[in-house]
Amino acid sequence: MRTTLKDIANKVGVSVTTVSLVINNKPCNIPEKTKLMVLNAVKEMKYTPNQLAVGLIKKRTNTIGLIISDIRNIFFSTLAMGVEESCRKIGWNVILCNTSDNHARDIEYINILASKGVDGILYCMSADSDEKLAKESCDLMKNLNIPYVMVDRTNSTLDCCSVVLDHINGGYIATKYLTDLGHKRIACITGPAQLFDSQQRLSGYIMALTQAGIKYDNDIVFTGNYTISSGYEAVEKIVQKNITAVFCFNDMMAYGVYKGLKERGLKMPEDISVVGYDDVFLSDMFEVPLTSVKQPIYEMGEEATKNLINIIENETSIKREIVFKPEMVIRKSTSELQSV
Amino acid sequence: MRTTLKDIANKVGVSVTTVSLVINNKPCNIPEKTKLMVLNAVKEMKYTPNQLAVGLIKKRTNTIGLIISDIRNIFFSTLAMGVEESCRKIGWNVILCNTSDNHARDIEYINILASKGVDGILYCMSADSDEKLAKESCDLMKNLNIPYVMVDRTNSTLDCCSVVLDHINGGYIATKYLTDLGHKRIACITGPAQLFDSQQRLSGYIMALTQAGIKYDNDIVFTGNYTISSGYEAVEKIVQKNITAVFCFNDMMAYGVYKGLKERGLKMPEDISVVGYDDVFLSDMFEVPLTSVKQPIYEMGEEATKNLINIIENETSIKREIVFKPEMVIRKSTSELQSV
Repeated sequence: MRTTLKDIANKVGVSVTTVSLVINNKPCNIPEKTKLMVLNAVKEMKYTPNQLAVGLIKKRTNTIGLIISDIRNIFFSTLAMGVEESCRKIGWNVILCNTSDNHARDIEYINILASKGVDGILYCMSADSDEKLAKESCDLMKNLNIPYVMVDRTNSTLDCCSVVLDHINGGYIATKYLTDLGHKRIACITGPAQLFDSQQRLSGYIMALTQAGIKYDNDIVFTGNYTISSGYEAVEKIVQKNITAVFCFNDMMAYGVYKGLKERGLKMPEDISVVGYDDVFLSDMFEVPLTSVKQPIYEMGEEATKNLINIIENETSIKREIVFKPEMVIRKSTSELQSV
Repeated sequence: MRTTLKDIANKVGVSVTTVSLVINNKPCNIPEKTKLMVLNAVKEMKYTPNQLAVGLIKKRTNTIGLIISDIRNIFFSTLAMGVEESCRKIGWNVILCNTSDNHARDIEYINILASKGVDGILYCMSADSDEKLAKESCDLMKNLNIPYVMVDRTNSTLDCCSVVLDHINGGYIATKYLTDLGHKRIACITGPAQLFDSQQRLSGYIMALTQAGIKYDNDIVFTGNYTISSGYEAVEKIVQKNITAVFCFNDMMAYGVYKGLKERGLKMPEDISVVGYDDVFLSDMFEVPLTSVKQPIYEMGEEATKNLINIIENETSIKREIVFKPEMVIRKSTSELQSV
């Protein structure tokens, strides 16, 4: 067990109060010799203040919770790295919470983090959170008086701070890039229907189609769930629809599309152009490097942390949304529409 | 701020002691009516016990630290998922610590975790840890009286619990697979030289070569650092050495090799066979799915957690090493030696 004040008191043969007074450098009439003995014992016995006790007094633990769906998704591990490194620089810590996109776990974790006395939460809600469930989570954090910042996933009805990407614009530039290349039959694989970020990307997709004079065709829009396997499964349906391009709402699903197209002997970009979203660090490693919409994920993690800590330290209640801009990264998975 | 005993006491108009006696169901002469008022206030004001206070009394926080080098490495994010999910099931939490393979950060984090009162540490030491530095970290945890389990990276001189893979066997089966295919010029890209797990894989590599009657050639052994870029950089040297196969000590470096070979117009497996190590979940997604040595990473995270918590709860000092067995996963990046 760790060294306590009592251990030091016993060792030196003085009271706990004496040890405490010396360590905290409080004014007292303790002889210099005793002070020195206490300080030597502190050093020798490697005493460090118990941060639980410090936390109780200061009502501060310098710890935040990071609630995400799955750390194995490269988007989230990159985000977590940005969060953790920002925290470390200022001596804060991060409790990692994976919910597997299950709202009940969001609630479970918010309660646990509250009872652990975290100072704040970076919250990326689970994919099954519709408006009602999202509100339930946020209300719980409010009721527990825990400062929080929504990261990546949010919706316009929530009255809170958030750090997000402009996904309407992201969906728009990805689709416009394809229409500019001459594509007209552009399939799309969305995220979970109830997620605001997926809805926004879809709006951007529709906006770009409309601008290009292409009618929206519900028949070539497939609902995925941001996993590799959901992209892979969509391929079977896509290939029957006479399409020439596909816009995947994240890179993981694009990886699944790669696999599915390959198994069917279809070539990228000759047969089908593929655009991803996120631009995670592996996307330029593939045989056909993936054209993708880049989110500055690490920087979003940093920014979210900075904001959360600002809220905690300054007890500000001003709500703001920080919106990062997407950027089109063009690689080899897309090309001009081939004349048939 | 969270509700405290004092808030409840003020609300009901009784002393903090009274509230505490009622909440903890201690024998006392408090009238039933007052008890009911206290309990109602507890419910209404959403009071939950402050785990900092509980932790101080029980000397237990039900929190462990996970020290790894970089959560963006899929090996570590998969490990972290195994750790976190095992903890969640029993109501424990995980503080995430990335060291960027920097020993000074290992030390910094061990001290921070100690001061936060974690009950134990799962420790994957930084890649720059030689025997001396590894011992320094372990001695620090011992001195701080923090139970710990080494995960993935350890060395035989450390007297502690660990969960690892049999890397000698891993290096052996990977190399033997290549010699069985007829390859004789088999390059290898190692991890950092001071890491025991890399040394072990190298032993296995040499063992398999020797068995096949192939002389070890130091000229085709390259030192990497487990990053994509170090694999990529090794390619330039490899291709000048008249080799027909390369064994990469992790999948990330194999991804870098893929990229480098592709840029030079070299085909896998026709020109060069490539074997990776870890079998992370993306390795079957590539154009040429990667042959790799599988580590059951998620399960190792679970097992390490189980062991650490066993040490914490039973205060056992019995040291044991749990060794998982590697498994060869054969895909498309390897083939028989082509006759020239």
